[in-house]
Amino acid sequence: MQWYFVAALLTILTSSQGILTTLSQSNGGYKYDYATVPFLAEVFKLLVSSFLLWRECQSSPPPRMTTEWKSMRLFPIPSIIYLIHNNVQFATLTYVDTSTYQIMGNLKIVTTGILFRLFLRRKLSTLQWMAIVLLAVGTTTSQVKGCGEASCDSLFSAPIQGYMLGVLSACLSALAGVYTEFLMKKNNDSLYWQNVQLYTFGAIFNMARLLLDDFRGGFEKGPWWQRLLDGYSITTWLVVLNLGSTGLLVSWLMKYADNIVKVYSTSMAMLLTMILSVYLFNFKPTLQLFLGIIICMISLHMYFAPSNMLVDLPLTVKALPQSLDEISVNRTTDS
Amino acid sequence: MQWYFVAALLTILTSSQGILTTLSQSNGGYKYDYATVPFLAEVFKLLVSSFLLWRECQSSPPPRMTTEWKSMRLFPIPSIIYLIHNNVQFATLTYVDTSTYQIMGNLKIVTTGILFRLFLRRKLSTLQWMAIVLLAVGTTTSQVKGCGEASCDSLFSAPIQGYMLGVLSACLSALAGVYTEFLMKKNNDSLYWQNVQLYTFGAIFNMARLLLDDFRGGFEKGPWWQRLLDGYSITTWLVVLNLGSTGLLVSWLMKYADNIVKVYSTSMAMLLTMILSVYLFNFKPTLQLFLGIIICMISLHMYFAPSNMLVDLPLTVKALPQSLDEISVNRTTDS
Repeated sequence: MQWYFVAALLTILTSSQGILTTLSQSNGGYKYDYATVPFLAEVFKLLVSSFLLWRECQSSPPPRMTTEWKSMRLFPIPSIIYLIHNNVQFATLTYVDTSTYQIMGNLKIVTTGILFRLFLRRKLSTLQWMAIVLLAVGTTTSQVKGCGEASCDSLFSAPIQGYMLGVLSACLSALAGVYTEFLMKKNNDSLYWQNVQLYTFGAIFNMARLLLDDFRGGFEKGPWWQRLLDGYSITTWLVVLNLGSTGLLVSWLMKYADNIVKVYSTSMAMLLTMILSVYLFNFKPTLQLFLGIIICMISLHMYFAPSNMLVDLPLTVKALPQSLDEISVNRTTDS
Repeated sequence: MQWYFVAALLTILTSSQGILTTLSQSNGGYKYDYATVPFLAEVFKLLVSSFLLWRECQSSPPPRMTTEWKSMRLFPIPSIIYLIHNNVQFATLTYVDTSTYQIMGNLKIVTTGILFRLFLRRKLSTLQWMAIVLLAVGTTTSQVKGCGEASCDSLFSAPIQGYMLGVLSACLSALAGVYTEFLMKKNNDSLYWQNVQLYTFGAIFNMARLLLDDFRGGFEKGPWWQRLLDGYSITTWLVVLNLGSTGLLVSWLMKYADNIVKVYSTSMAMLLTMILSVYLFNFKPTLQLFLGIIICMISLHMYFAPSNMLVDLPLTVKALPQSLDEISVNRTTDS
């Protein structure tokens, strides 16, 4: 399977996620407990990966599996980083409003590039760095509030702590991604075995979160397992399956492609969601959405197109014969 | 003189033009007839170029000057194109409002690239094409109306004729630039001799325009030459001198650099004016201005940086020794 096929699928599924989540709401709110969705998605991913690992074990050669504690103890770390990230996110939102938070979220693209370079020691060309910055600028452009929309002055007026927490949040989010890539690539273990470890801890941490919510609420609504599927509709199940599938695709990309591919996939998904919203939810298309799409497309081409395709032309033209006539003249002289 | 020095000077002077013009207004209007400014600027350019040509004639070898009618008859053409352009601009503004017109004006950047390729047969790499599109996107982004500003819905709601005339206007504006470059480069004539021809026709056409305005107004305010300097202040004279100087710099760039350099200069000037307006006129800086500046800076670097600086790294790293240690190992083996 080619990475760009997986990346395209991830884009489509991530984009559907936003739309399915909106469709699963009724009267602008959730009938079900939204915190149960990521838990069930982790369980789904764990089941799928366990099944695939079991099938791999039946075949020969058997899959490579490192079962030392020294290796396994690294797998809860992404979950721990996400846990810290969620709390920082919560703290950030006490200082800035959600639209400013959303704009700052694009910083994650740049911090991923930086940690990718520093932590995974991957070299990027100047052009690729510019492409990464452009991707962040493009997604931000598409989110610029148009005139007539509310809450415009807030962007430059939040307290400094808000911006610092926003940067920290972007760093943590990038760190979780880069760390997962490190985990998946550090040895030749079977992808499914790595997934099983990752999602076991993922399910445990999500369960802990549901339990913590119950404690905070004083078990008023009863323990989480008794009301796990309350208010679930078919759409809610689709949200769970979709979230689980995107998770499996991300794992695949972390092992066989990299974080930058993932960042492009999810950014393109954001733009695709905005385009689909124009049709599905009668959103008004803005000039800034149009500009953002052009910027992100150019960025995509800059990052992934072979460099000789991008810059070759003016350098070789001087060295090569200027036209077909000259080529035939040269041939005549040669013979 | 290096082209980038001239281009930087053009950026500064073009940017001052907007600010000086604003400063020359009193109570939001002009005390003087604004149509006299380009006429006097043409006269200023003609005087400066005549003087420089005369000085060049004293030196040896004398300047190259083609005085055939066959060559000279080409020099009114840019003025004629600008005349048509002004009328198209006027017609466009009957269909679209000024802010939409301003946004569409950025199309000129792309049409200049296209005519530059088609008319002057200059090859551009994929990267340079992307840079040109990005420059247009960047300047447009900086002009996106923020929330709270008036006239937002108008952009996608003008009649189709408005957009078609806007595209025509962008083509004519690009054609005038590309044609001037063709004129300046078609032979090795002295720049000053070419300027004298260009500005003589420029002055004549501007004079004709003043006369036409008088006819339209039924000579109510008297003929233009009697009220040429009415209401002129020192700032107005600075506007004239500044406009004349930018014209001379553009001529120089058309001969020794090209239209794309000019397009970058004037686009950067637009951004510089917006930045200066934040300080001088207490304009509120917007997120879109900030994003536009980043996009245009990346575009500038993409277009002008040597291509090996942009893409070399990841291609050569594989072929070259990985580290200094390996180099010294190789050297030891060689000796």
